[in-house]
Amino acid sequence: MALTKEPKINAQRLNDTLQSTCTSWGALAAPSTGMCRLTLSPEDKEVRDWLVAECKSLGCAVKVDQMGNIFAVRPGRVQDAKPIAMGSHMDTQPAGGRYDGILGVQSALEVLRTLHENNTTTQLPVALVNWTNEEGARFPGAMMASGVWSTHSSTPLEACWDLQDKEGIRMKQALEDIGYLGETKADYRENGLECHFELHIEQGPLLEKEGKTVGIVTSVQGMKWFAVRVEGVEGHAGATPMPGRADAIVTASRLITAVRDAALTTELGVATVGVIKSDTSSQATISAGVDFIIDVRCTTDEMVDQLAFTIFKAFDHIITEENNGTSYTISRSWGMPQSVFHPRCIEACRSAALKVVGVDQVMDMKSRAGHDTAWTSRVCPSSMIFVPSKDGLSHNPNEYTSPEHCAIGAQVLLDAVLHYDEKARSGDYPGS
Amino acid sequence: MALTKEPKINAQRLNDTLQSTCTSWGALAAPSTGMCRLTLSPEDKEVRDWLVAECKSLGCAVKVDQMGNIFAVRPGRVQDAKPIAMGSHMDTQPAGGRYDGILGVQSALEVLRTLHENNTTTQLPVALVNWTNEEGARFPGAMMASGVWSTHSSTPLEACWDLQDKEGIRMKQALEDIGYLGETKADYRENGLECHFELHIEQGPLLEKEGKTVGIVTSVQGMKWFAVRVEGVEGHAGATPMPGRADAIVTASRLITAVRDAALTTELGVATVGVIKSDTSSQATISAGVDFIIDVRCTTDEMVDQLAFTIFKAFDHIITEENNGTSYTISRSWGMPQSVFHPRCIEACRSAALKVVGVDQVMDMKSRAGHDTAWTSRVCPSSMIFVPSKDGLSHNPNEYTSPEHCAIGAQVLLDAVLHYDEKARSGDYPGS
Repeated sequence: MALTKEPKINAQRLNDTLQSTCTSWGALAAPSTGMCRLTLSPEDKEVRDWLVAECKSLGCAVKVDQMGNIFAVRPGRVQDAKPIAMGSHMDTQPAGGRYDGILGVQSALEVLRTLHENNTTTQLPVALVNWTNEEGARFPGAMMASGVWSTHSSTPLEACWDLQDKEGIRMKQALEDIGYLGETKADYRENGLECHFELHIEQGPLLEKEGKTVGIVTSVQGMKWFAVRVEGVEGHAGATPMPGRADAIVTASRLITAVRDAALTTELGVATVGVIKSDTSSQATISAGVDFIIDVRCTTDEMVDQLAFTIFKAFDHIITEENNGTSYTISRSWGMPQSVFHPRCIEACRSAALKVVGVDQVMDMKSRAGHDTAWTSRVCPSSMIFVPSKDGLSHNPNEYTSPEHCAIGAQVLLDAVLHYDEKARSGDYPGS
Repeated sequence: MALTKEPKINAQRLNDTLQSTCTSWGALAAPSTGMCRLTLSPEDKEVRDWLVAECKSLGCAVKVDQMGNIFAVRPGRVQDAKPIAMGSHMDTQPAGGRYDGILGVQSALEVLRTLHENNTTTQLPVALVNWTNEEGARFPGAMMASGVWSTHSSTPLEACWDLQDKEGIRMKQALEDIGYLGETKADYRENGLECHFELHIEQGPLLEKEGKTVGIVTSVQGMKWFAVRVEGVEGHAGATPMPGRADAIVTASRLITAVRDAALTTELGVATVGVIKSDTSSQATISAGVDFIIDVRCTTDEMVDQLAFTIFKAFDHIITEENNGTSYTISRSWGMPQSVFHPRCIEACRSAALKVVGVDQVMDMKSRAGHDTAWTSRVCPSSMIFVPSKDGLSHNPNEYTSPEHCAIGAQVLLDAVLHYDEKARSGDYPGS
């Protein structure tokens, strides 16, 4: 009886599956254990196809929505209830690791496998969700598809479909190309979830520093992105005198330095430029234009706005000071407001974590990275579980979380789902 | 008699041919009159094939060397003498114009056509030369193939062949792909020229400013290029605190600003960064590395070295000041020393210019841009003729030189060739 009541995930199977699927689809060249599995790439298609087949073999019904989000639903006693979801993403940065996002989906699969082999019947359906383009590394706009689903994204469905990658391929085309342009509406009102749990690596150093194993995430900081275009005047690098040049790269360089300085001196949060592109590919040309993206994140939305204001005030000052004919425009901006997670889900995760690792190993924390759960939290009860990132590294091929920590995370995920389901069954949660 | 002695180029034919071949091969989308005819591209192949056919139809023998340089030689009375060459290039910047390089080759063709239709017999052979990859826009290294031919390039033949474009295509492969990997040695000692003239647009504002029509170029400033690699540590843009970041883009931005500041404050010459590449294509990643190229040009080689020294001293200061784990290395450097042109060729050009436009319209000048003639001048008598660039613009789709100025340039080129040939015939020039 205890066995069916308290199913245990299979740590070895979880690790084997995670490693082998990473090695098969999107691994960087050995000895790196890094990953390049850009969203909707051939590698992403292959791992999606495998995931769909696995979920079907466990008796799940699989739906794909208009943004390529995959919902694999294991039935519960209540036939038409909305499912308890375990979601994350399988896409990675161009030079990312094996855990960011991937651990969440693989652990969700391990939970489904464990429920299946234990013949566990839940009150509510239980779903695995694979969200499309969480990284925003191929099509700019992180947490894109969960944003569309929650109808809170600043980029609506049609505008997302129209975004282009570096090769000029539109997102809708990319979805079609790999066979994941689904017919289910990408809208929580038509394809809802009872609640959403996400197991994720911390991507920071705090758990390791505090000697804890599990983080109970209570909120996600607010974020904004600004695509900036600097315009200058193209010219010959040899024949154009220094005074009077309208050099877009020089101005962009000053602006990028100002982004860092503003974040450092105000201490409001973090601000980063990772992507930069010059109009010219010739060393002998003064660039007519430069594009870059600013990523701003702070604990509250007010702080995000304040930091952005400081940055653009510095920009205006630099443009005035340079006074050389260069200018900047914000060609696109989008963002994700701060998120506070739901007490029910936080309680489910905390209760599960206390059972799995004990009170000494658990801490509450805020997420400084964005996650799909920040969007789901706007339309259904949601929360997250963090496990440690070695040296705090992420978005880096050396990203690492030990198999033991992965297994603990997956067990906490399973127990949180069962905790929520039991509460729902016993009527503790009036219909969400 | 006068007609055969003083042949006149056909201004209409020159302009028609220049415009129609630009429109056919490499034109940017209208209404722009700009060009993108990268070296060894399909467009470059087509214009080369056309040029070879034209020259053959005028009775020229055509040789292609190991760097794809085309030598179209019209025989003279002295059968095995080295030819008087008129050289330039038909490749352009990715967003260049219709005149930089192209005018020199098209005018050389117009000279050959004029000699042909006048049945002019010269003492020495007269050659049109199309130099490969003058721009260095596809394979980094400007004036590359004339540098190899003169054996003065810091990048020798095999190393040039091994250079890759952005797509990873090696130069030797690119030469093979368009059928221009010739068997003639790319070496002036095996395939020599008596002398080398080049008609070119000024690419600066001086002729226009002074109200002159023809510039007699007496020297070319020295140039050096440095490929710089900045290394940092990749990280998550949200989860990595500002203090302690080793952000390669921020450091690169400060270095690029320092390049401009060093050139501006020392007044030694010009220094430009046109190309920049970040390791990451993700807005949410702190970049682990940035590559950029510095282009340094001064009147003398000593000044080039002094400006480069000032730049790298500033770099070291910034690295020390940042003290954040970022560093820089010079991953490749190459250059072209200052050039002083040959009195014989300068005299031929000046004499021709005085005849064509009169003394009020002619001025001596230095070239601030690099040219193939800077390399040829190291191994054979050489000089250049400049015609005005509207607004000093070049390496820009709006680059423009009027048909009248183009025609004047071509006539000066023809007359300079005939002047040199006459001097050679009359024995004024002891064998070069």
